Amino acid sequence: MSKSEPLPSSSSDTGAVPSRTMANAIRALAMDAVEAAKSGHPGMPMGMADVATVLFTKHLKFDAAAPDWPDRDRFVLSAGHGSMLLYALLHLTGYEDMTLEDLKNFRQLGAKTAGHPEYGHAKGIETTTGPLGQGLGNAVGMALAERMLNARFGDDLVDHHTYVIAGDGCLMEGISHEAISLAGHLGLGRLIVLFDDNGISIDGPTDLAVSDDQAARFKASGWHVQKVDGHDPEAVDKAIRAAKRSDKPSLIACKTVIGFGAPTKAGTAGSHGAALGAEEIAATREALGWPHHPFEIPGDVLEAWRAAGRRGAKANAQWAKRLAGQPSERRAAFERGQQGDLPEGWDAALVAYKKKLSEEAPKVATRVASQNTLKVLGDAVPELVGGSADLTGSNNTKAGDMAVVTRDDYSGRYIHYGVREHGMAAAMNGIALHGGLIPYGGTFLVFTDYCRPSIRLSALMGQRVVYVMTHDSIGLGEDGPTHQPVEHLSALRAIPNVAVFRPCDAVETAECWGLALARADGPSILALTRQGLPTLRTIAQDENLSARGGYIMLDAEGGARRATLVATGSEVEIACAARETLQAAGIPTAVVSMPSQELFRAQSVSYRESVLGDADTVKVAVEAATGESWYAVLGGDFGFVGMTGFGASGPYKELYEHFGITAEAVADAVRQRLG
Amino acid sequence: MSKSEPLPSSSSDTGAVPSRTMANAIRALAMDAVEAAKSGHPGMPMGMADVATVLFTKHLKFDAAAPDWPDRDRFVLSAGHGSMLLYALLHLTGYEDMTLEDLKNFRQLGAKTAGHPEYGHAKGIETTTGPLGQGLGNAVGMALAERMLNARFGDDLVDHHTYVIAGDGCLMEGISHEAISLAGHLGLGRLIVLFDDNGISIDGPTDLAVSDDQAARFKASGWHVQKVDGHDPEAVDKAIRAAKRSDKPSLIACKTVIGFGAPTKAGTAGSHGAALGAEEIAATREALGWPHHPFEIPGDVLEAWRAAGRRGAKANAQWAKRLAGQPSERRAAFERGQQGDLPEGWDAALVAYKKKLSEEAPKVATRVASQNTLKVLGDAVPELVGGSADLTGSNNTKAGDMAVVTRDDYSGRYIHYGVREHGMAAAMNGIALHGGLIPYGGTFLVFTDYCRPSIRLSALMGQRVVYVMTHDSIGLGEDGPTHQPVEHLSALRAIPNVAVFRPCDAVETAECWGLALARADGPSILALTRQGLPTLRTIAQDENLSARGGYIMLDAEGGARRATLVATGSEVEIACAARETLQAAGIPTAVVSMPSQELFRAQSVSYRESVLGDADTVKVAVEAATGESWYAVLGGDFGFVGMTGFGASGPYKELYEHFGITAEAVADAVRQRLG
Repeated sequence: MSKSEPLPSSSSDTGAVPSRTMANAIRALAMDAVEAAKSGHPGMPMGMADVATVLFTKHLKFDAAAPDWPDRDRFVLSAGHGSMLLYALLHLTGYEDMTLEDLKNFRQLGAKTAGHPEYGHAKGIETTTGPLGQGLGNAVGMALAERMLNARFGDDLVDHHTYVIAGDGCLMEGISHEAISLAGHLGLGRLIVLFDDNGISIDGPTDLAVSDDQAARFKASGWHVQKVDGHDPEAVDKAIRAAKRSDKPSLIACKTVIGFGAPTKAGTAGSHGAALGAEEIAATREALGWPHHPFEIPGDVLEAWRAAGRRGAKANAQWAKRLAGQPSERRAAFERGQQGDLPEGWDAALVAYKKKLSEEAPKVATRVASQNTLKVLGDAVPELVGGSADLTGSNNTKAGDMAVVTRDDYSGRYIHYGVREHGMAAAMNGIALHGGLIPYGGTFLVFTDYCRPSIRLSALMGQRVVYVMTHDSIGLGEDGPTHQPVEHLSALRAIPNVAVFRPCDAVETAECWGLALARADGPSILALTRQGLPTLRTIAQDENLSARGGYIMLDAEGGARRATLVATGSEVEIACAARETLQAAGIPTAVVSMPSQELFRAQSVSYRESVLGDADTVKVAVEAATGESWYAVLGGDFGFVGMTGFGASGPYKELYEHFGITAEAVADAVRQRLG
Repeated sequence: MSKSEPLPSSSSDTGAVPSRTMANAIRALAMDAVEAAKSGHPGMPMGMADVATVLFTKHLKFDAAAPDWPDRDRFVLSAGHGSMLLYALLHLTGYEDMTLEDLKNFRQLGAKTAGHPEYGHAKGIETTTGPLGQGLGNAVGMALAERMLNARFGDDLVDHHTYVIAGDGCLMEGISHEAISLAGHLGLGRLIVLFDDNGISIDGPTDLAVSDDQAARFKASGWHVQKVDGHDPEAVDKAIRAAKRSDKPSLIACKTVIGFGAPTKAGTAGSHGAALGAEEIAATREALGWPHHPFEIPGDVLEAWRAAGRRGAKANAQWAKRLAGQPSERRAAFERGQQGDLPEGWDAALVAYKKKLSEEAPKVATRVASQNTLKVLGDAVPELVGGSADLTGSNNTKAGDMAVVTRDDYSGRYIHYGVREHGMAAAMNGIALHGGLIPYGGTFLVFTDYCRPSIRLSALMGQRVVYVMTHDSIGLGEDGPTHQPVEHLSALRAIPNVAVFRPCDAVETAECWGLALARADGPSILALTRQGLPTLRTIAQDENLSARGGYIMLDAEGGARRATLVATGSEVEIACAARETLQAAGIPTAVVSMPSQELFRAQSVSYRESVLGDADTVKVAVEAATGESWYAVLGGDFGFVGMTGFGASGPYKELYEHFGITAEAVADAVRQRLG
């Protein structure tokens, strides 16, 4: 069924250079680099060197000279602390931007070879790993993206595998359950996980803390499972071949010795996370039969590795020919998706839709407004693919006639992620990293806590992932304090490179969705209400007013402005009501809607002052959340109407009264500050 | 082996009132309460009513008249959205503070009967649930606490089970893997999980999103597993009896029909999370043969339930007799632990230790200082039990000769939690809720993200849990941005009722540990360095200076104070060096150490002003993190020397230079503001 033939194996199996010798090159580079840095993790690269050698010389479809080849196999080092394994492989197979000098600078400031693999530092690093289990979760997203793009573009263009190396730590993390379970459910047969089953973690032997039968566990989630000796290249090769034949995701548990080759530290936690030391390294060289100097790779060994790095060149050329032979529209669509460029006309569709909204002025929850926007965007942006962590009807993430992705049919664009917020977020990172699709996914805003490690990685890697987070305040009502976000807006705004949007009505919701989609270099969080809100932006404007983060929605009237009410989301309506009271009392008051603090803070000082008013203008912020983040916007001198602690269970209108988030309270706060 | 006999069954099995009829009382109350509130989840209580009836009438060891009986079985409703199941059970069995009126006020503001069970709202609510999977994690901690206390106090005083009702959602969450795996490893045979296997979640049939073989999965983690028809009371009874006999933790998968009894909505997502509606309720009454009015429970049915609630009275009395018969010291120790009172003299030990530190002035990382403090506290506070998520040597959480808790010997006080930050935090909540022990646990500060949902619940429930979070800044060096917390101090400070402590030296570390221990009504986070720090507090003081959150460490000299440098943790040393420069330049400068913003903000205005200086004093905050949280302490007008984005991989001293967190930068910031 697959159009692409298997790649040739490289010289390693001609016998010219034995697989073990090639693996020893990895071992030597890993221990030498860690020793030079006096910091790092030699044990994992040394333990998994044999497995990685089989993978890279016989199976992984890649072309070191063309690292961005879209149809390459993806390789994810989920056990990111073993970064030297990846760096050594990239250097040995001939990635241009991973030089011997880079390896010598391992873990030094400014080096590509950071302590953990950092996406963007060098080609061939497919994702940032280190926080355990994340790589596994990313790989599920990559493998899913591959199948979804395959359904769109066919075997000619999309036909590759995703390989993962994961350790005991990855499999102990909860996120591994979500990832494994989702992959099994979706039947991601092209996902192959090589488990570094070395029985050692930082505290010592894993049996100090874990007794799971990993093979049985993966089988329970619908995986194809094999166990092999990770130091037997033929067994590993055979297992990978069997895994490729299976239509289930595959686990290959590779029994390995951590720090393989180190006479006294192999098989112990002592080789896990610290330099081996000069003496042990000398003894390891002896034991491995590797007499070469530090960082020295003999010519024949290097050439054998370089040949492995060239294995994919021909397949890449054939693939390019197939791409060139596609109908021009199809080819353009594929290339546009890979570039991450949005289709022409997508923004015009949004402008037209905004106009309609301003005219019709619906009263809807912003979560519903988001769903309506998605109907428009769904037509205009086919690469947009959505889902929810089992809150589809609550998050309003399924719009129009979006078909559901199943293991039997990947042509849909909606994913039932299940109650797996963390797995969803990590998978969305993987989808974004894979390229060709733009993922969004929903849960309740309070449950950003459940996926925060992955949100942080979206931000650190600069990935376009859109988090559709509904039920964004006490406005959700009866579900009570466990479900009511209070600190979450501040806590999310605190993560660098995250844009948090909290639109106040249907028009702003459309604008914020547009900004989130256009934000190609980082994630966005849409904080959306459960409760209905009136349309406040009833005058149609083509310009995206939300793009500057905050703007004057209603200006002061009847004299010089004396007060500015700054609000977001559901509280803009309250601010408008308070303004009415104040205006009636002869206090000229402006309302500023500020859907995004981040975007507003990036504006010029003069713009910000023009919006907020001068130092003499009384300022009151209104947000149904705790107020930490407002200081950075408004300085130290402002009133705040919002929350000071956890919420409560009750009908939402009563909660607003109870917690004093009302128009009267806002007006009072202004009066108090006016003295 | 067990000293306590099984409780008698209540009348339900005498045949006077059939079990199904008793269960129908739960069903009726659940659907009536949800209907009255027009909000809530009737499906789960109706589906699990039969199972819960068997549990509460035949197995659960409790005495409704004495809800705080320490040796009661614990019952955890992990699927917290089914809160009406719990409220109905508490009312029916005769808990005094759960009246019919309370049930009628379900989900109303101020009611005990919140949307999700809230710990502290009423007796019998053993933990706050709702965020899925948390209850399961808590239960692991409770079951572990039971065994650990049993090892200390014997079967006479501690001999009970922990029961959980969990749903599909709980088992999809990643935290369930960590909890299940840990329980299996530790052989917690008194933990019995009743899985509401109804095949429905919010999005619809669970097969939309999950294909796991749950039975096989639990078996893979060392559990005893049974499957039963959840509507067959005898089968459920038999299964629970078998589970009690097993020395493994037990899963009983109860096949149930969600919304059991509702003619058109049973077995569908339609009964999950919304009121059934008057028509469906009438038809359900008909189908169940339950002709009674809303909230009306016939006398015989109520009496049968009340009898179930009295089942434990005799056992409780016998237990009280056994307690009274203990040697007085043992009895006092048990009672003190249950009260949560710290032993006499614990604080004196800390004062003596501080004195020694001030004299010896060691240069140690605060993580090491924490370990040294734990040696002192470990002797003084036997109920303190620790652990780490596989970072024992890095978190320095194992002190002195702490023995490790194993499945064969629970008498130790150190737990190898494995790479399970989330499971650890949820278990610590369970240990604290159980009573008798004070839990602390470690990981890297950045990985508070992995357990944030449980930290939030520690805070919401006001539980004394101490999070020992090391590697608290770029000062960890080469591991790079994935491991370097940047936004975490601000994000944690944003959670209500969390106290974040960041001590600057060994003396402050001892003080902050003392404050964390004394903080009986909420969690504490100790943010500790990897890198060594000098002792700055070289003048011994009995008073705990950290208790006020911030204080003047070095006062301005040679004139009126012109500048205040406010710093925490590792940056206090930098502030002190900057002060020296400024003093030398004739600028009288004070250094304020502020280990806890929360405690400082709780001080009087006059105290805070005396520490920070007046409005004319230039203020500069120094913290190797992003600065969001400082505005609330210092107002809008201050300089900040810290981070503005993610960190980098490199030796830590170079990172401090690179990111400009140096004494010169601090001095410059002061000079700039002085103009």
